[in-house]
Amino acid sequence: MRVTIKTLAKALNLSTATVSKALNDSYEISNDTKQRVKALARELHYVPDLNASSLRSGRSKTIAVIIPEVADSFFSQAINGIESVAQEKGYHVLFYLTHESLAKEQAILQDFQSGRVDGVLISVTAETHNAAHIKALESKKIPVVFFDRICDEMETAKIITDDYESGYKATQHLIDCGCRQIALLSISENLSISNQRMEGYKKALADNQLPFNAANIIYCANDESYNFCLIKNLMVQANRPDGIIATVEKLSGSIYFVCRELHLQIPTQVKVIGFSNLQSAWLLNPPLTTITQPAFNMGKAAAVALFKALNKKNYSPKNEILVIPSSLEIRNSTVI
Amino acid sequence: MRVTIKTLAKALNLSTATVSKALNDSYEISNDTKQRVKALARELHYVPDLNASSLRSGRSKTIAVIIPEVADSFFSQAINGIESVAQEKGYHVLFYLTHESLAKEQAILQDFQSGRVDGVLISVTAETHNAAHIKALESKKIPVVFFDRICDEMETAKIITDDYESGYKATQHLIDCGCRQIALLSISENLSISNQRMEGYKKALADNQLPFNAANIIYCANDESYNFCLIKNLMVQANRPDGIIATVEKLSGSIYFVCRELHLQIPTQVKVIGFSNLQSAWLLNPPLTTITQPAFNMGKAAAVALFKALNKKNYSPKNEILVIPSSLEIRNSTVI
Repeated sequence: MRVTIKTLAKALNLSTATVSKALNDSYEISNDTKQRVKALARELHYVPDLNASSLRSGRSKTIAVIIPEVADSFFSQAINGIESVAQEKGYHVLFYLTHESLAKEQAILQDFQSGRVDGVLISVTAETHNAAHIKALESKKIPVVFFDRICDEMETAKIITDDYESGYKATQHLIDCGCRQIALLSISENLSISNQRMEGYKKALADNQLPFNAANIIYCANDESYNFCLIKNLMVQANRPDGIIATVEKLSGSIYFVCRELHLQIPTQVKVIGFSNLQSAWLLNPPLTTITQPAFNMGKAAAVALFKALNKKNYSPKNEILVIPSSLEIRNSTVI
Repeated sequence: MRVTIKTLAKALNLSTATVSKALNDSYEISNDTKQRVKALARELHYVPDLNASSLRSGRSKTIAVIIPEVADSFFSQAINGIESVAQEKGYHVLFYLTHESLAKEQAILQDFQSGRVDGVLISVTAETHNAAHIKALESKKIPVVFFDRICDEMETAKIITDDYESGYKATQHLIDCGCRQIALLSISENLSISNQRMEGYKKALADNQLPFNAANIIYCANDESYNFCLIKNLMVQANRPDGIIATVEKLSGSIYFVCRELHLQIPTQVKVIGFSNLQSAWLLNPPLTTITQPAFNMGKAAAVALFKALNKKNYSPKNEILVIPSSLEIRNSTVI
């Protein structure tokens, strides 16, 4: 038989309200009674019914993390950062993959209207062009914190890295290595991170009196063989790029595969930089020069901002942007 | 004001029980009434209160996935497989990392006693030597399905790969390539996968009249620099191994790092095979020969087995072992 508050109340000849208050350490109950109730609860292995208790408290002790994919070292490291904070706070983490689909992102958030989670950490899809579906959570007092891929229009806490500076740094490094025709592989025309990285790229070209050529911006998709063809088409041209920047991790792999197929030598014939957190970057052939993002710390900071909001009366996160810088790690895909 | 079942009942002059049954498509309610209730619910943007509704149904529509870590391509691909099934079934996935700590695994499972989840998918830690803490869920009618890292003593569905055969195949391949002194890097003396892989290794040695040398079994830990030292100590010996099998993904990287530091050439001076699902395996220097596991399909099969149990009256998964085979993919870390 399941031991409930009723069982304890009956055995101790107390009201269920008194037992409940005693278990929750209410100031209305004497220490003596609290001790008696807790001792019996322990003895009978009483476990609170979570659904009943969150119904009363209105809190689920659960947060949601919504990310585009998990097979990417940025996101897997960010998850570790989030989880390190959630576990310390005694919270549970619900975990959703959008696979870069806006429709999926909308369906997931719609479901949160029912009170499944206390707060949301999100890195939006490559398709997300406005925040209407995310804003809808505000009316339910469910705080939302963005990390990495943010929506500018929403007033909340946002944890990002210095994407503009990183785009600039990557481009300047390739120019310093002698590149004059630099391609940028992007994944979205909507995403803040993609746009910021491209703006940095454009500025570096301009500062070096190099022309911007729209044909050098390649929009890849969430489909490896499609990306492979796109990059191959780019690299079989007579005036092919002498440098490529992959703005997301998986695209670096695609560049390597294309170069292998076309027998193009990295870095002598084409130099490659990837935005990537792969620990194996320097075991690659050749070792990959990377813009390395502070993934773990970004996840951690996002979780900290969310828990701050959950402790506030109005649940609304501070409207501020926290920027944690990335670093350029030079390896043999750009220098011999 | 929040729209509740009461609001709908009052507006339609029905009892709350009737409204609730209508919303849940009960056969007791006429189609006409159902349509009236649902139309008003839509019009007033009624969203069911999840905590109240799971209190009544006793189901949370949530499953838990417990894994040792996420920064490993086996687990990230398995997660994708699990999530593909859960999303289709309209279930939510709670996600827990044990970081190979048995104490953490126990604490997580203890919490499930409160009814937070309907079922559990688990791949146990390297420290887990018995299933007492997992069995405790049976009394709560919470089905548990194992994938990859199983507990033999528990009677339930288990999705594994052919670890014994894979250990044998990896060893035989190294012997075929000329190795006579083969080291095996393991992570646990308890884990079924580790023991099975080692038994396959021993059998292949025996079948080839090669002696088994306990000093060639190296137990690594959940600490990269410690593992680096262990492997380095192994490789600076005069009679160092001429072949190494890394039984988990991250250990392949450590072997590469050690060989680089000691200026040992792979594969001429030492041949390396890794149990690994890294897509970048063949971009490594040299490309890594792998035992590649059917990670996505194992995750998917585990989720399917769990949902089958959830649809059964007694919630108990079929006591059977499903084996999905791994494959040997030969690359330049073993052959020139």
